Amino acid sequence: MSTSHVYKKIEMVGSSTTTIEDAVKNAVQRAAETIRHIRWVEVVETRCHVEENQIAYWQVTVKIGFTLDT
Amino acid sequence: MSTSHVYKKIEMVGSSTTTIEDAVKNAVQRAAETIRHIRWVEVVETRCHVEENQIAYWQVTVKIGFTLDT
Amino acid sequence: MSTSHVYKKIEMVGSSTTTIEDAVKNAVQRAAETIRHIRWVEVVETRCHVEENQIAYWQVTVKIGFTLDT
Amino acid sequence: MSTSHVYKKIEMVGSSTTTIEDAVKNAVQRAAETIRHIRWVEVVETRCHVEENQIAYWQVTVKIGFTLDT
Amino acid sequence: MSTSHVYKKIEMVGSSTTTIEDAVKNAVQRAAETIRHIRWVEVVETRCHVEENQIAYWQVTVKIGFTLDT
Amino acid sequence: MSTSHVYKKIEMVGSSTTTIEDAVKNAVQRAAETIRHIRWVEVVETRCHVEENQIAYWQVTVKIGFTLDT
Amino acid sequence: MSTSHVYKKIEMVGSSTTTIEDAVKNAVQRAAETIRHIRWVEVVETRCHVEENQIAYWQVTVKIGFTLDT
Amino acid sequence: MSTSHVYKKIEMVGSSTTTIEDAVKNAVQRAAETIRHIRWVEVVETRCHVEENQIAYWQVTVKIGFTLDT
Amino acid sequence: MSTSHVYKKIEMVGSSTTTIEDAVKNAVQRAAETIRHIRWVEVVETRCHVEENQIAYWQVTVKIGFTLDT
Amino acid sequence: MSTSHVYKKIEMVGSSTTTIEDAVKNAVQRAAETIRHIRWVEVVETRCHVEENQIAYWQVTVKIGFTLDT
Amino acid sequence: MSTSHVYKKIEMVGSSTTTIEDAVKNAVQRAAETIRHIRWVEVVETRCHVEENQIAYWQVTVKIGFTLDT
Amino acid sequence: MSTSHVYKKIEMVGSSTTTIEDAVKNAVQRAAETIRHIRWVEVVETRCHVEENQIAYWQVTVKIGFTLDT
Repeated sequence: MSTSHVYKKIEMVGSSTTTIEDAVKNAVQRAAETIRHIRWVEVVETRCHVEENQIAYWQVTVKIGFTLDT
Repeated sequence: MSTSHVYKKIEMVGSSTTTIEDAVKNAVQRAAETIRHIRWVEVVETRCHVEENQIAYWQVTVKIGFTLDT
Repeated sequence: MSTSHVYKKIEMVGSSTTTIEDAVKNAVQRAAETIRHIRWVEVVETRCHVEENQIAYWQVTVKIGFTLDT
Repeated sequence: MSTSHVYKKIEMVGSSTTTIEDAVKNAVQRAAETIRHIRWVEVVETRCHVEENQIAYWQVTVKIGFTLDT
Repeated sequence: MSTSHVYKKIEMVGSSTTTIEDAVKNAVQRAAETIRHIRWVEVVETRCHVEENQIAYWQVTVKIGFTLDT
Repeated sequence: MSTSHVYKKIEMVGSSTTTIEDAVKNAVQRAAETIRHIRWVEVVETRCHVEENQIAYWQVTVKIGFTLDT
Repeated sequence: MSTSHVYKKIEMVGSSTTTIEDAVKNAVQRAAETIRHIRWVEVVETRCHVEENQIAYWQVTVKIGFTLDT
Repeated sequence: MSTSHVYKKIEMVGSSTTTIEDAVKNAVQRAAETIRHIRWVEVVETRCHVEENQIAYWQVTVKIGFTLDT
Repeated sequence: MSTSHVYKKIEMVGSSTTTIEDAVKNAVQRAAETIRHIRWVEVVETRCHVEENQIAYWQVTVKIGFTLDT
Repeated sequence: MSTSHVYKKIEMVGSSTTTIEDAVKNAVQRAAETIRHIRWVEVVETRCHVEENQIAYWQVTVKIGFTLDT
Repeated sequence: MSTSHVYKKIEMVGSSTTTIEDAVKNAVQRAAETIRHIRWVEVVETRCHVEENQIAYWQVTVKIGFTLDT
Repeated sequence: MSTSHVYKKIEMVGSSTTTIEDAVKNAVQRAAETIRHIRWVEVVETRCHVEENQIAYWQVTVKIGFTLDT
C-alpha cells in the first residue's frame, strides 16, 4: 500500500439465513460486482429479522473500503 | 423482503424552511431521482441555519437505505 | 417529586404517517393503556419507512419514564 | 464567512407545547435577546414532559453557534 | 406492517458454548415463551466468559423488538 | 452461572438525598420487590435535582440484569 | 415548570479531596454565586488527580442547567 | 446557500507522509476529480501506518459534503 | 493546582487557512481576550470549509477549560 | 469472585480465516501464553481483510479481562 | 509537567463493598505496586455485583495514566 | 500480514510544543524503545496544555498496535 493511495468507503447491508459471516460475505460479493479493489470491511451493526418467533435471517451493516487510484 | 437482498446506504442532507419532516422529504425526493428502491431513512443529525437571528431553514442529515438486487 | 421516587424506563417505537411528534404521541398513548404515571419521554432514534420512493410513515424510538411508587 | 472568524457555542433547552421545531425557535428567540450574530443551531437531545399521561410539552436541547468577532 | 403499529423493545442477554448466533437464538427462544410477535433483534454487545483460559461461553446482549398491537 | 442462562435487563432510576451509591441501592431494592434473581447493575447516568441552589437529591439511571431461567 | 421556560446549560469541573458527590457540590456552590435558578446537574466525567501514587482529589465534570426566564 | 439545496456526503480516506492536513487535502483533491461542488469536509478518524517503528504515513478518514442541485 | 479549584469549560470554534493547530490557537487567542486563567483545550471536532474544490480554511471546535477561583 | 479482586484489561486483535469466534479464540489463546487468570472477553470491533475481492480473514479487536491478585 | 513527557494508560477494574471511590482506590493501590508515577485516573464504567438481591460490591473500570520517562 | 497474526494495542499520550503530528511521533518513539513491531497508530484524543493563556504543548492520546507473534 503506497502512501499516495486514496480510499473510498461505502455502507452496505448484507443478509444471510445462516451466519453473520455469511451476511458480510454477501455484501462484499455484491459490492465486488462493480468495485475492483476492495481492501477491508468494517462491521457496523448486526440485526436479525424474526418471523414466527424464529430468526429468519441476519442483517449486517458494513462499511466497505476500496482503493480509488489505479 | 427476501433474505438474498443486499442494501446500500447513502448519506444526504436535506433542507427546508418549514419543518424537520419536510427537510427529510426533500432529501428523499432528490435521492429518488436516481435511485429506484428506497426502503428506509435514518435521521442522523438535525441542524438549523440562522439568519438575522431567525431560523432560516432546517438541515437534516439522513442515511437512505435502498435495495441493490434485481 | 419526592426524593423516594423510583422510576422505570421502557423502550418503545411509535409510528405515524404525518409527523415525528405524532409518532411519539402514538407510543405514549399505547404505553398509557397499561402504565399510570408516565413522567417523561426521551427520543432515541428517528427513522422513516419508505414505500414507492415516498415516506410512508415515521418510526420514532423513545424511552418512556414512569413512577413506580404508588 | 471570513477565515478569521471565531465562533462560540452555548447549550440551551427550549420548550414548546406544540412541536420540536417550536421548542428550538423558543431557545433561539431567547438567546437572540443577548446575542447578536447567531449562525447555526445543532439539535442535541429531544425529550417530552408528560402530565396525566399526555405529552405536556417538548424540551429540546440545542447548541447555538454565533460569531464572536465584530 | 401498518402505520398504526407500536413496538416495544426489551433487552436480554443470551448465552451459548458454541457461537454468537446461537447465543442470540437462545435469547430469542426464551423471549418467545412469553412474547408472541417478535419482529427484529439488534445485537448490542458481545462478550465471552472465560474459564481455565478457554472461552467457556458467549454472552450476547440483544434488544428484541415486538409488536404491541393485536 | 451455567451456559444455559438467559438474562433480562431493565432500566430504572433511583433517587437519594445522600449519595450516588444510595440512589443505586434504592433502585435495586425497589426492583427486588418483583424480581428474584438480580445479578448485576450497570450505572448509566448520574444527575442531581437542585432546589434553592442546593443539591436536593441524586438521580441515578441504572440497568439491572437478572436471571430468567428456572 | 411552565412550558415557556428556556434553560441554559454550562459545563464546569468541581474538585474534592473526599468524594465524587462533594466535587459536584463544590461545582454547584461556585456556580450558585452568579446563577440564581439552578435546576439540575448532569455528571459528565469523573477523574482523579493522583499524587505520590495516592488519589489526591476527585475532579468531576458536570453540566449545570438553570432557568433563564423571569 | 439557498434553502432548496440538497447535499450528499461520501466517506474517503486520504494519505500523506507529512501531515494530517495534507492527507485531508489528498482526499479532497481525489474527490474533486469527479465531484464539482464540494462544500465541506468532516474529519472522522486519524490513523498512522507505521513501518520499521517510524510513522510512514498518515491516514485520515473524512466525510466530504457536496451540493447535488445544479 | 489546589483541590479547591473549580473550572469552567466553554465551547468555541476557531478558523485558520493553514493548519488545525493554528485554528485552535485562534480560538484560544480570542478566548484569552476575556478569560484570564485558561488551563487546557480539548479538540472536539475538525472540519474544513471548501471553496472551488480547495480547502479554504480549517474549522476546529474546542472546549476551553479555565480556573474560576481567583 | 471475592470483593478484593482487582482486574486488568488489555486490548488485542485476533485473526482467523474462518469465523469471528475463531478470531477471538486466537487472541485469547495468545494472551493465555503469558496471562494466567483470564476471566472475560469484550468484543470491541470486527473487521475483515479483503484480498482479490474475497474476505481473506477476520480481524476482531477484543478487551481481555484477567485477575491480578494471586 | 515538562513537554517531553510521555504517558501510558492502562485499564483496570477495582472492587469495593462500600463505595465507588473505594473501588477506584483499590485499583490505584494495586497498580501502585508495580507503577511508580501514576498521575491521573479516568472513571470509565461503574457496575455492581448483586448477591441475594443486595449490592455485594462495586466494580469500577478505570484508566490509569502514568509517566513513562524517568 | 499473515492470518495467524495477533496484535496488541496499548494506549499512550505523547506531548509536543509544536504540532499534533510531533506529539504522536514522540509517543511512537517512546513505545519503540521496548516494542519491536509497531504497525499502526490510532489518534484517540487531542488536547492542549495552556500556560499564561498560550498553548504550551499538545497532548495526543493514541492507541498503538503491534504484532505479538515473532
